[in-house]
Amino acid sequence: MTEPDVAGPAAREFFTTRTVAETRAGFRPGRRTPAETVPLAEARHRVPATAVTAPHALPGFARSTVDGYAVRAADTYGVSEGLPGYLEVAGEVRMGAEPGVTVGPGTVASMPTGGVLPPGADAVVMIEYTQEAMPGTIEVVRPVAPGDGVVRADEDAAPGAELVPAGRPLRAQDLGMLAAAGITGVSVHARPRVTVFSTGDEVVPPATGVLRPGQVRDASAVALAAMVAEAGGEPAMGGIVPDDPAALESALSAALTDSDLIVISAGSSVGARDETARVVGRLGEPGIWCHGLAIKPGKPTLLADCGGVPVIGLPGNPRSALVVFRLLGMPLVRLVGGCTMAPPEPAVRARLGRDLASAAGRLDVVQVRVRDGVATPVFGLSALLSVLTAADGYVIVPEEATGLDAGTEVEVTLYR
Amino acid sequence: MTEPDVAGPAAREFFTTRTVAETRAGFRPGRRTPAETVPLAEARHRVPATAVTAPHALPGFARSTVDGYAVRAADTYGVSEGLPGYLEVAGEVRMGAEPGVTVGPGTVASMPTGGVLPPGADAVVMIEYTQEAMPGTIEVVRPVAPGDGVVRADEDAAPGAELVPAGRPLRAQDLGMLAAAGITGVSVHARPRVTVFSTGDEVVPPATGVLRPGQVRDASAVALAAMVAEAGGEPAMGGIVPDDPAALESALSAALTDSDLIVISAGSSVGARDETARVVGRLGEPGIWCHGLAIKPGKPTLLADCGGVPVIGLPGNPRSALVVFRLLGMPLVRLVGGCTMAPPEPAVRARLGRDLASAAGRLDVVQVRVRDGVATPVFGLSALLSVLTAADGYVIVPEEATGLDAGTEVEVTLYR
Repeated sequence: MTEPDVAGPAAREFFTTRTVAETRAGFRPGRRTPAETVPLAEARHRVPATAVTAPHALPGFARSTVDGYAVRAADTYGVSEGLPGYLEVAGEVRMGAEPGVTVGPGTVASMPTGGVLPPGADAVVMIEYTQEAMPGTIEVVRPVAPGDGVVRADEDAAPGAELVPAGRPLRAQDLGMLAAAGITGVSVHARPRVTVFSTGDEVVPPATGVLRPGQVRDASAVALAAMVAEAGGEPAMGGIVPDDPAALESALSAALTDSDLIVISAGSSVGARDETARVVGRLGEPGIWCHGLAIKPGKPTLLADCGGVPVIGLPGNPRSALVVFRLLGMPLVRLVGGCTMAPPEPAVRARLGRDLASAAGRLDVVQVRVRDGVATPVFGLSALLSVLTAADGYVIVPEEATGLDAGTEVEVTLYR
Repeated sequence: MTEPDVAGPAAREFFTTRTVAETRAGFRPGRRTPAETVPLAEARHRVPATAVTAPHALPGFARSTVDGYAVRAADTYGVSEGLPGYLEVAGEVRMGAEPGVTVGPGTVASMPTGGVLPPGADAVVMIEYTQEAMPGTIEVVRPVAPGDGVVRADEDAAPGAELVPAGRPLRAQDLGMLAAAGITGVSVHARPRVTVFSTGDEVVPPATGVLRPGQVRDASAVALAAMVAEAGGEPAMGGIVPDDPAALESALSAALTDSDLIVISAGSSVGARDETARVVGRLGEPGIWCHGLAIKPGKPTLLADCGGVPVIGLPGNPRSALVVFRLLGMPLVRLVGGCTMAPPEPAVRARLGRDLASAAGRLDVVQVRVRDGVATPVFGLSALLSVLTAADGYVIVPEEATGLDAGTEVEVTLYR
């Protein structure tokens, strides 16, 4: 009962209905944020504007990976516990210093893990397989091959090798690799500036202590702002706009000049939605992509491309708004922010706890709780935010399905 | 070859080896950060110190969920397309305003979605199932039951109902729910302050342009700081401490007074590790939990509880350090920060591309790339950070397994 089916008189309000699949494939506004350079310490999850390559070989010198003795591998061939080899200790390599010793035939140099392999040596034998035979001489009980116990000078990265790709948010280890290469600033896409508006004469700020009858606090804006940040954007609060086309047009026009994306929690009544569409339609070319999306909840969604800037008109119900923004808005924030490889989302496979009905041609987003491998749908009106707060994640019933049977294994995308 | 097996002389250095399972279950330092109040706009992923309950019913009034007419349901019983009911329009409910109309027998009030249900009405019939018969009179062609088209005054939350639990990081919808309830500040655990030290005479700051032979840039600190932030902590950079017990003791003692957790990328040689353990052992009671962890890579891990503050001595190899910190350090950051319900991690199931060998009793962390449902191990020395940057995620070979066969279905935890 929460959203009318498309059949019947209600259909007239949705003049350009699209499916989610069509929208994902076809709605690609051209806006991209410019590059800026940020220090490595602030670059977590930022999106490199270009690939970064190694300025020199890493680690840059052949390095021991064990505590032991640098040797010529050939000097250890054939040795064993029963027939140890005896080698003379020619000197010691110290951590972080150039080796002051050369390894010749029949000699070794003692080495710490991470030390520079001295000239002449081609392997390091672990200290565990040696012991001191007499002062200045060790016995070796296991042979090594050239390269054993050693990391090559270019084994972590050859000069010019790609350290991080463009378009993939930087992970902890990527930052470590850049630091190892001496790269302390990285060119990343600016965070997309996303202006979030709420509309509706009944909507009042969350700080409103006592509500008058019919008033509701603005629940969507703070939640949408959190999702914008989660997707790498920088939310800007546009505030609450009354149900007045002139006020809306003035607010949107002003925001368009300094936003990379605009989000409107549209009024929930048909009239308010139509007004929003009319105003958005005047903002810029090519204009409205869809007004009406084959999704439940979330049908009264408006998407437009206003001169390359995506404008998203979300349903007035907070729950529908949040569902649609997660599925379509967050990917748009990433698109505009230059992210071509979205970070993986937490998900779990579970068996469906009961049958789910769905209309073919419409994508259904069903909130679920997950316990012991069973996904139990949380039902409730699309006006209820509690359905979302009670859920651990959601299941998608795709467009082509007419429902899913209880017991079906489904993928639950989990909230975090 | 990168880390010696425990058998043989190397075993002597690890005087308190533990398994990862033992550590997860038994190593629980008592430190918790205090509560602080933050505005909702800054509360994303913060951890509530106490559950938050609804101060009043939500939405607080019975609300229409559709555009239509408020009615007494009984007045629609038996109506149909062939036999419509005729009802008089007594007035109009406006958005965000108290209804100025009462619905009596045989009358209706026109309603927008989200409007206040007027006195006397118990349902709303959708506009789609009505039409104007003559001015001031509508015909209704479908019956409604009491409650249809209406959300109850306490349907989203009853007074006193739990809106968000303590200990679970706040999600976008949780913020929305708090805003709806008029709660604009929330009591959360302070972010744990995590001081990150690097040690080693060979380690130089990432900004060092030209390295002398044997020097390496500090790759671990920036990566560990990113992981601290990911786990909800606030990293503090302790800098690089030389391989000198007095310098380390002085640095750690100073950090202990204002840290909730201390992380040390320990020196990689046996001697440096032993020195670190001796210094940490003097910092506070009950002291060292383990020195040596049955994990690969990462065996030379030190864990201590110094007066309730966890101290983690990580292996000198950046790759080992990052692996151990992800598995054990990030959960400790969450523990200290009051998080009792960790956010879900992204993961995917895949078939293993080749056999993996493992020693029983040791947990192996194998880096993998995932393509088309196949997880292909990325092999390489534990000294190589490139193994981590090339990986999409990792597979755990648990303590009880002696390896996994190619084709086995495994869970890959994905990096983000």
